[in-house]
Amino acid sequence: MAGEAQTRELTVDLGERSYPIMIGTGLLARTGSLFSERGFPVKSPILLVTDRAVEDLYAGTVEQSLREAGYTVARAVVASGEKSKSLDVFEELVTAALETGLDRRSTVIALGGGVVGDLAGFVAAAYMRGVRFVQMPTTILAHDSSVGGKVAVNHRLAKNIIGAFHQPEFVLYDLDTLASLPPREVRAGYAEVVKHGLIWDEAFVKWCDENAERLLALEPDALGYALHEGCRVKSIVVSRDERENDLRAILNLGHTIGHALEAVAGYGELLHGEAIAIGMVGSARLAARFGYGDELAAETERLLRKFELPVRIPSGFDTDEIMAAMQHDKKFKEGQMVFVVPKRVGEVEIRSDVPAQWVRDIVEQLKGEAGKL
Amino acid sequence: MAGEAQTRELTVDLGERSYPIMIGTGLLARTGSLFSERGFPVKSPILLVTDRAVEDLYAGTVEQSLREAGYTVARAVVASGEKSKSLDVFEELVTAALETGLDRRSTVIALGGGVVGDLAGFVAAAYMRGVRFVQMPTTILAHDSSVGGKVAVNHRLAKNIIGAFHQPEFVLYDLDTLASLPPREVRAGYAEVVKHGLIWDEAFVKWCDENAERLLALEPDALGYALHEGCRVKSIVVSRDERENDLRAILNLGHTIGHALEAVAGYGELLHGEAIAIGMVGSARLAARFGYGDELAAETERLLRKFELPVRIPSGFDTDEIMAAMQHDKKFKEGQMVFVVPKRVGEVEIRSDVPAQWVRDIVEQLKGEAGKL
Ligand SMILES: NC(=O)c1ccc[n+]([C@@H]2O[C@H](COP(=O)([O-])OP(=O)(O)OC[C@H]3O[C@@H](n4cnc5c(N)ncnc54)[C@H](O)[C@@H]3O)[C@@H](O)[C@H]2O)c1
Ligand SMILES: NC(=O)c1ccc[n+]([C@@H]2O[C@H](COP(=O)([O-])OP(=O)(O)OC[C@H]3O[C@@H](n4cnc5c(N)ncnc54)[C@H](O)[C@@H]3O)[C@@H](O)[C@H]2O)c1
Ligand SMILES: [Zn+2]
Ligand SMILES: [Zn+2]
Repeated sequence: MAGEAQTRELTVDLGERSYPIMIGTGLLARTGSLFSERGFPVKSPILLVTDRAVEDLYAGTVEQSLREAGYTVARAVVASGEKSKSLDVFEELVTAALETGLDRRSTVIALGGGVVGDLAGFVAAAYMRGVRFVQMPTTILAHDSSVGGKVAVNHRLAKNIIGAFHQPEFVLYDLDTLASLPPREVRAGYAEVVKHGLIWDEAFVKWCDENAERLLALEPDALGYALHEGCRVKSIVVSRDERENDLRAILNLGHTIGHALEAVAGYGELLHGEAIAIGMVGSARLAARFGYGDELAAETERLLRKFELPVRIPSGFDTDEIMAAMQHDKKFKEGQMVFVVPKRVGEVEIRSDVPAQWVRDIVEQLKGEAGKL
Repeated sequence: MAGEAQTRELTVDLGERSYPIMIGTGLLARTGSLFSERGFPVKSPILLVTDRAVEDLYAGTVEQSLREAGYTVARAVVASGEKSKSLDVFEELVTAALETGLDRRSTVIALGGGVVGDLAGFVAAAYMRGVRFVQMPTTILAHDSSVGGKVAVNHRLAKNIIGAFHQPEFVLYDLDTLASLPPREVRAGYAEVVKHGLIWDEAFVKWCDENAERLLALEPDALGYALHEGCRVKSIVVSRDERENDLRAILNLGHTIGHALEAVAGYGELLHGEAIAIGMVGSARLAARFGYGDELAAETERLLRKFELPVRIPSGFDTDEIMAAMQHDKKFKEGQMVFVVPKRVGEVEIRSDVPAQWVRDIVEQLKGEAGKL
């Protein structure tokens, strides 16, 4: 990635707990002054949580900026990858927080992708029953995870099952960090960008379709716009239904099958974005069963292929295991199968009348066609 | 304990999250009908969390009542005692919840003392980011812990450091269960009852003083009245400041020293109520240093002795360790020592200007006089 992009800003509207999202270049080095402007107390130590890969590249810049502004900051580093989203690593971070002397006015910063964000966010939510939290996403996927306040760790039997709603005080999204992202992570990140279009905004889907190449090349202005639009959709939905009583569930498009695939693969084998790309194709096929036509699945598939994302279940996955994993998913109310099903590009509905057999059929199809992956 | 007591009811006033506390005899057997009346869904399984000692005595009654009302209920039993308030046991309960198939509309019931309440409450807070929670306290101390929504587990370095605010949907306090309480637990429980008087209500302190014998004998009507008054004070304070921004901190009278003693003793050696009884004497001595006179300490001590509670630090405790444990306590803001200090019986203030040396002196005194325990 080369060049600069304008700084884009938007607000997640949650009354007293509203917060800004800043998206732009050169932001990491401004962390300290942003903390000062927003009145974060200098006397209370900050815990910077990051992962091994991100630490080497960006932790120094953030810490230096904070120290220049008078803050005390301690670094806690976890292994890269989904396996760190565990209760064990959570406990290690609480130990680090205690040893650092974090107090009730302290802040936890998540510098990294969705793994670091979810994990550090749960630390911020539970430590002393809640301290301040700042998200500094460094992956494309994290445009999704850093907004909305869902934080969690995994349990061996289910993903994200232990968590909280804990909103950040702000989200600082420095596009420069995305230049070092492995190409596979870039592609996986766009799965959630496309998802935000598919659930809410047909025009944005069209724009993604037309700009896929610029996006894959991480062209700053296209990237900034795409992340802004993704965050915008997420913000609107979260503002209207923070605690997922109804509307917010639409954000789970592709996630019922997606989470099951992740669980069966062993966390980390299949990237989250890859798993939900497959899941979104599955949901579009459910739409066909409900009579919304076959084109939706073809169209979804074509778009995701354009972002070089998988659209079939890799061979070797066991259907029974996938079905069983879905039983533990939060999206099942009282034994019924609940799915987010697209009606057309830009609009979805939540159906709680999805026959398990349809899901099984589609899982089988998506496996059977794995050769076409 | 013999006989019946009238059922007393009060409400914790928290807007949409307001809930009732019912205190009386014969309530366990009414659990099922109370769940029905309040619209708890029969399709979603219930997880009944209890400890070994309580299980044998009361779990059957509760389960039978729920089953008769059409509910599915699974039992999860933890070892009795403070050591169960750990992240490991928390994880075991999440596993049990998953294996039971708890869904988003499910309820976690805590049947037991404060340990079970805090632990099961944190499970209810974090499982799927929060499910319904019902408190069924079976100790005197739990009149305090079951009201107000503070839930937590301990870390080896600090007590209650990992937790949440998660209010129950109701509190069902069956006085009959208190008959089987070991005498030492009865006494320890009254420490928090007395605390509620000391921070808020001089007349109630006087009543406790006059009725100590009836209370120690668990005379139903005295007991019902005392627990109602204790819950009432707690409710008022929590209603005005749910998240401990200011007022709620007064509930920590005696807890800064108390928690440190518990941590140094190894959780479980010194009962929570015993530790805070000693802590309240320490706070009253701080009051003397601040010029509020010496009688307060003498008076506090006399009252606590009447309930056969310890008022000195047992020999063998190390002063440095106690002081170090206090550094990890949540009640220290930005390195300063914060204490709840009584001004007179029924009124306290929060002081953030307490010199560490005064605290150390008082700890030393309370140890030095241990012979008079
Ligand atoms: N909370 C939410 O609302 C929400 C929403 C979506 C996803 N999620 C969660 O997000 C997680 C996935 O997030 P992710 O895809 O960002 O994964 P991730 O955090 O594991 O990051 C992906 C990989 O890229 C590396 N990396 C991160 N930033 C880098 C950079 N700038 N340069 C080089 N390498 C970098 C990381 O070390 C890691 O190996 C999942 O656990 C998922 O459940 C949460
Ligand atoms: N959340 C809060 O606001 C809050 C407030 C005060 C205390 N607490 C917590 O409460 C805990 C202490 O609670 P506790 O004193 O009730 O301890 P506890 O839960 O350990 O119960 C004390 C003992 O009595 C046994 N027991 C319980 N009920 C019994 C019964 N009816 N008959 C016979 N035996 C019975 C238990 O098995 C246990 O051994 C501490 O962890 C403390 O931190 C929390
Ligand atoms: Zn996702
Ligand atoms: Zn207490």
